[in-house]
Amino acid sequence: MKIRVINPNTTSSMTEKIGEAAMRVAMPSTQIIASNPVSGPVSIESHFDEAISTIGVLEEVKIGEDEQTDAYIIACFGDPGLMAAREITRAPVIGIAEAAFHMASLISTRFSVVTTLGRTGIIAEHLLQNYGFSHHCRRVRAAEIPVLDLEEDPNLALDRIIEECLRAKAEDNIGAIVLGCGGMADLTAHIRQEVGLPIVEGVTAAVKLAESLVSLGLGTSKYGDLDFPRPKVFTGQFDHLSEYKKR
Amino acid sequence: MKIRVINPNTTSSMTEKIGEAAMRVAMPSTQIIASNPVSGPVSIESHFDEAISTIGVLEEVKIGEDEQTDAYIIACFGDPGLMAAREITRAPVIGIAEAAFHMASLISTRFSVVTTLGRTGIIAEHLLQNYGFSHHCRRVRAAEIPVLDLEEDPNLALDRIIEECLRAKAEDNIGAIVLGCGGMADLTAHIRQEVGLPIVEGVTAAVKLAESLVSLGLGTSKYGDLDFPRPKVFTGQFDHLSEYKKR
Amino acid sequence: MKIRVINPNTTSSMTEKIGEAAMRVAMPSTQIIASNPVSGPVSIESHFDEAISTIGVLEEVKIGEDEQTDAYIIACFGDPGLMAAREITRAPVIGIAEAAFHMASLISTRFSVVTTLGRTGIIAEHLLQNYGFSHHCRRVRAAEIPVLDLEEDPNLALDRIIEECLRAKAEDNIGAIVLGCGGMADLTAHIRQEVGLPIVEGVTAAVKLAESLVSLGLGTSKYGDLDFPRPKVFTGQFDHLSEYKKR
Amino acid sequence: MKIRVINPNTTSSMTEKIGEAAMRVAMPSTQIIASNPVSGPVSIESHFDEAISTIGVLEEVKIGEDEQTDAYIIACFGDPGLMAAREITRAPVIGIAEAAFHMASLISTRFSVVTTLGRTGIIAEHLLQNYGFSHHCRRVRAAEIPVLDLEEDPNLALDRIIEECLRAKAEDNIGAIVLGCGGMADLTAHIRQEVGLPIVEGVTAAVKLAESLVSLGLGTSKYGDLDFPRPKVFTGQFDHLSEYKKR
Amino acid sequence: MKIRVINPNTTSSMTEKIGEAAMRVAMPSTQIIASNPVSGPVSIESHFDEAISTIGVLEEVKIGEDEQTDAYIIACFGDPGLMAAREITRAPVIGIAEAAFHMASLISTRFSVVTTLGRTGIIAEHLLQNYGFSHHCRRVRAAEIPVLDLEEDPNLALDRIIEECLRAKAEDNIGAIVLGCGGMADLTAHIRQEVGLPIVEGVTAAVKLAESLVSLGLGTSKYGDLDFPRPKVFTGQFDHLSEYKKR
Amino acid sequence: MKIRVINPNTTSSMTEKIGEAAMRVAMPSTQIIASNPVSGPVSIESHFDEAISTIGVLEEVKIGEDEQTDAYIIACFGDPGLMAAREITRAPVIGIAEAAFHMASLISTRFSVVTTLGRTGIIAEHLLQNYGFSHHCRRVRAAEIPVLDLEEDPNLALDRIIEECLRAKAEDNIGAIVLGCGGMADLTAHIRQEVGLPIVEGVTAAVKLAESLVSLGLGTSKYGDLDFPRPKVFTGQFDHLSEYKKR
Repeated sequence: MKIRVINPNTTSSMTEKIGEAAMRVAMPSTQIIASNPVSGPVSIESHFDEAISTIGVLEEVKIGEDEQTDAYIIACFGDPGLMAAREITRAPVIGIAEAAFHMASLISTRFSVVTTLGRTGIIAEHLLQNYGFSHHCRRVRAAEIPVLDLEEDPNLALDRIIEECLRAKAEDNIGAIVLGCGGMADLTAHIRQEVGLPIVEGVTAAVKLAESLVSLGLGTSKYGDLDFPRPKVFTGQFDHLSEYKKR
Repeated sequence: MKIRVINPNTTSSMTEKIGEAAMRVAMPSTQIIASNPVSGPVSIESHFDEAISTIGVLEEVKIGEDEQTDAYIIACFGDPGLMAAREITRAPVIGIAEAAFHMASLISTRFSVVTTLGRTGIIAEHLLQNYGFSHHCRRVRAAEIPVLDLEEDPNLALDRIIEECLRAKAEDNIGAIVLGCGGMADLTAHIRQEVGLPIVEGVTAAVKLAESLVSLGLGTSKYGDLDFPRPKVFTGQFDHLSEYKKR
Repeated sequence: MKIRVINPNTTSSMTEKIGEAAMRVAMPSTQIIASNPVSGPVSIESHFDEAISTIGVLEEVKIGEDEQTDAYIIACFGDPGLMAAREITRAPVIGIAEAAFHMASLISTRFSVVTTLGRTGIIAEHLLQNYGFSHHCRRVRAAEIPVLDLEEDPNLALDRIIEECLRAKAEDNIGAIVLGCGGMADLTAHIRQEVGLPIVEGVTAAVKLAESLVSLGLGTSKYGDLDFPRPKVFTGQFDHLSEYKKR
Repeated sequence: MKIRVINPNTTSSMTEKIGEAAMRVAMPSTQIIASNPVSGPVSIESHFDEAISTIGVLEEVKIGEDEQTDAYIIACFGDPGLMAAREITRAPVIGIAEAAFHMASLISTRFSVVTTLGRTGIIAEHLLQNYGFSHHCRRVRAAEIPVLDLEEDPNLALDRIIEECLRAKAEDNIGAIVLGCGGMADLTAHIRQEVGLPIVEGVTAAVKLAESLVSLGLGTSKYGDLDFPRPKVFTGQFDHLSEYKKR
Repeated sequence: MKIRVINPNTTSSMTEKIGEAAMRVAMPSTQIIASNPVSGPVSIESHFDEAISTIGVLEEVKIGEDEQTDAYIIACFGDPGLMAAREITRAPVIGIAEAAFHMASLISTRFSVVTTLGRTGIIAEHLLQNYGFSHHCRRVRAAEIPVLDLEEDPNLALDRIIEECLRAKAEDNIGAIVLGCGGMADLTAHIRQEVGLPIVEGVTAAVKLAESLVSLGLGTSKYGDLDFPRPKVFTGQFDHLSEYKKR
Repeated sequence: MKIRVINPNTTSSMTEKIGEAAMRVAMPSTQIIASNPVSGPVSIESHFDEAISTIGVLEEVKIGEDEQTDAYIIACFGDPGLMAAREITRAPVIGIAEAAFHMASLISTRFSVVTTLGRTGIIAEHLLQNYGFSHHCRRVRAAEIPVLDLEEDPNLALDRIIEECLRAKAEDNIGAIVLGCGGMADLTAHIRQEVGLPIVEGVTAAVKLAESLVSLGLGTSKYGDLDFPRPKVFTGQFDHLSEYKKR
């Protein structure tokens, strides 16, 4: 089984870490292809960054389709481009935020999210509401660390995340914590140990959900809402998509 | 990995079919132990049947704990005893209704449920609301076949289910269908072929979710709401539980 | 009118107190029969305890049916077995949690719940959501006293409950408090006096709702979802239910 | 116990029927005082009619307060003036819509409402949402009969209501029906017989809830949101309220 | 275009200020007619005050209808009589609470409300829920100043409001603040400057929404729920409405 | 005042019609600049089309910022890029779907949406839920006409839309209809006349909301969630955004 783990930002060191985290939990028979777009933001910390990164996510799915990919993972906690990506493939597409919410709700009655920056909290809140998990989440918290600090000063970042997780444990009346950033994928084990609560991380959760759907013979429904987009002309820098859509 | 698939009713032919369905999707390294309680209803078609069957479910978990079980599945679409079962083990416990809802929401924007009897529809409605999937489900439908007809007259039952699924496809504006009974586990492939929509079945979905959580090192949170019950005295026919709880 | 007040746990001293509280508010023409199962947990402080106690609750309803009972009350704040009990009788069945929520919403715009242990708070939260009272409840609080402390050290328990009620009054912006345990039934008057807010207690509330429904000629609907369970075979220790269901 | 049943419209024949219905279910020790305002609409079929009738409702509560009334009922299905009435008394105040919703939710999992005119359906829908009963109600239906037809051509009205109730029974997947007009109070028994479902009527339901609260020593909370209004000057035709409020 | 801005209380100095605030934002071609009823409370701080003031609001709409008014604004934060007023005119009718909520949701993801008294907070909470803005509002806060203090001691009132707004800014994780009282209309600019957040005030917001609807040729729908009330007899002090309704 | 009306698709004939519709309702002092991106899909009928079109929307806002634009309108019914666009400007940004929902909720209690294709219905459903209008909308309907048919065969398209609107009027118990496509902007008057219900169209609604916010001195909050994105490096085809963000 071939799973393409798409890091929507263009920081390849983060892509590498995400790929390694994915491989650690994948079945031996699963091939993990971690990739990131050539074009886009080096980190995703706003709706604007998300919107731009979506183009790259879709390009990566396009590449994946040429390679007979069995499932896709969008490895940014805002799940950018999730619905659009689902439209252009029969394979399952999993966002890491949704993956983490699903898994957390299976092992606890209530969880909190610890994300990077306060301003991205609203993205998590919107996803919780859209997906139906609002009642399962007590609180969205931020460690107030920029995403790339996870690369540049991992120890300080780790300390701050653990601190915020401990506050969540003490104050939120929860049974689990969801880590709210793809860049935290390699820190999970350490955080789990320090915090003493189940820590649910989205990249790894998504790998297992993707493998699960493929094993079940389930892919994105091509009946109704998520069917392939109607073929049409795209102009300007996107005119290659006119071709693409006619496939 | 050892997964105990508990059929909460006492019809062993159904347990066998459920076990076979589970095995078909399990990883080679997964050992599926399909079991059913000695005591309880031969089928579950009401809140009353569910309540009685819960005792058997919990007994089966108790047995499983003695056998170092890695995960449990409750293979009745009402998820009877789910929260109670989670309290008495560190392993993950997955209900087949929740499993199917989670999976269906990952491959479609809206789904319908096709269950056995109209009167069990309310159980599905309540679960959808509790779990947060109300907005994802367009309609809960019933094929109006008693559960054991799935055993005794499988062809007639199959016809009726397919008919109802086709009505759902035509009328409900959906992308997928959830089968609302553990006894339908062996019919999935056939229904999928006839209906031409992704068909999500709970037993198989639950196996993959259980395997996933175990692979991720995630079990039922023992911090807070789902911690082991406080030890206490049970009287009368349940006095063996006083011992049990002291373990 | 004959009302069976079922204490789902097996602590008879608590049953007695619950019965007395019920009698204090019942109409002179109402006969209160307070009972508890022979078998089950001595207190209910978890989903597990609830699940086990449900068997006893249903046995008590069965006994009540033989005695032409007019209404049933389930006197544990998790309303264990409520839907199942409703299925096996034409009489109304009232849970003390729902009773208290209904009454509190009639005399205030917002209330808080003060229950025994933090871990049972989730049970109250789920009930509030299922019943539709989530928006009326500001907060579920726990006095952190085990249920049986209400029997064994009533004065300490009372102090803690009053303390928590006063905190709710000061912090929660509420007009009333719901006491979240059947074992607090005899403490209501005292708490009301100390706290200076309307205190709604479930056993007494349920008695009046049960009397009300009987007076109105209303019983559990036997049309649709709550109709008598379909007769069927039960095996093992529950085989007497096969008979029962055929009545 | 003295209960004032306020018919918010000024049709005294309807007041009489409402009073009789109330008396039929009241305890022997309960004194029912059915009244209607001197001023206001002869029937209530719009938000406008409701708004005007609220003045009369509040005047009636004022009269009731002078007579040491123990509880009030607002006998129009829109519950006009409910919150305002609660503010000016320590006694409980019950609206017949809320009363019917509460009672219906205790004996069935889902109900439908059958009201008079389509245009008043929105009022019922808003109340269901405000009170928290949206999920319990499948559908608000109208028999399309003006309120006063219940007085002037009761047989035709009755036929139409029964017809709509039978449609609800056949199509709505419900266990009970709520009658959506105070003027239907005397028809309940007949409708129940013809329809074969539990029929919940608000006037009678409200009497029992009012009696219940009084028996429990519970009145409208005077702590917080529903406390007596701050005394102040009213001008013009309402200047007598300046006095009133100073009491 | 002629817009009638109805101050539902009878304090003419407040009406004047509201009118001036309205004029400051109105188009040059818009004629603002600020008025208040002759009869009613001098300020509105409870459901009771609201209910009484509704009569005056409807009288003012009646006067407005004789003067070919193009749109109405109800300038009290509880939006008293909004639905009733809509029924008796083809013109749009806008409440200042709804206006402020709509505008705030267009410029921020989350806002808080700062109102006068704690007890009126519940009115804002109910409106937020009814209108669909519950998820957009983090918190309803009160500066704990009686409405008329805005007239009598405007500087102290202003200080308290600014203080509460600053607390909201610091604690609520919001992007904007809604001022929860018509009497604050003239303070907006000052508060905005001191607080450093967008401040949304309802009177001015409503003027622009009213102008907008008129420009779009949109008025209150006379099809269905908000059609003119059915003509009927009103008795006593309201008998002039029998005439009115027959127009 | 300068309002940039951005048609997110690249069909300039549609941009022209949208611009004309906008101008018809704009204040004389308002300058409408209708534009569309150079690059992107010729019509938007899927999440994929939306995602691609978002880049163009953001480019257009960028151009607008250089021209001291006072407000922006995103003239596609899915409101593509709304949150991202808000982040990169202090001006208000209004989507035509949200604009139409807001306006429709001010003149009716319930509305239906008539959109182009069934598959875009899910986009409308998601927006209704996110914005808080789910309870105000009875049904999302599709005329099943591709967007560009509005250009190519306007008469046939018009007939189909009117037909669907009449069905909504007859079946949905509504007071108004929202037109679910920017390309319908020029048809509103005609449809309104044929259907006999208030017809709310998003482009025109958005113009008035944009003018309103500007008149009120309100722009997108730059405090918290919608503040300018943090400056960062963009790679590849988006590297010009690195510069942009540093402004």
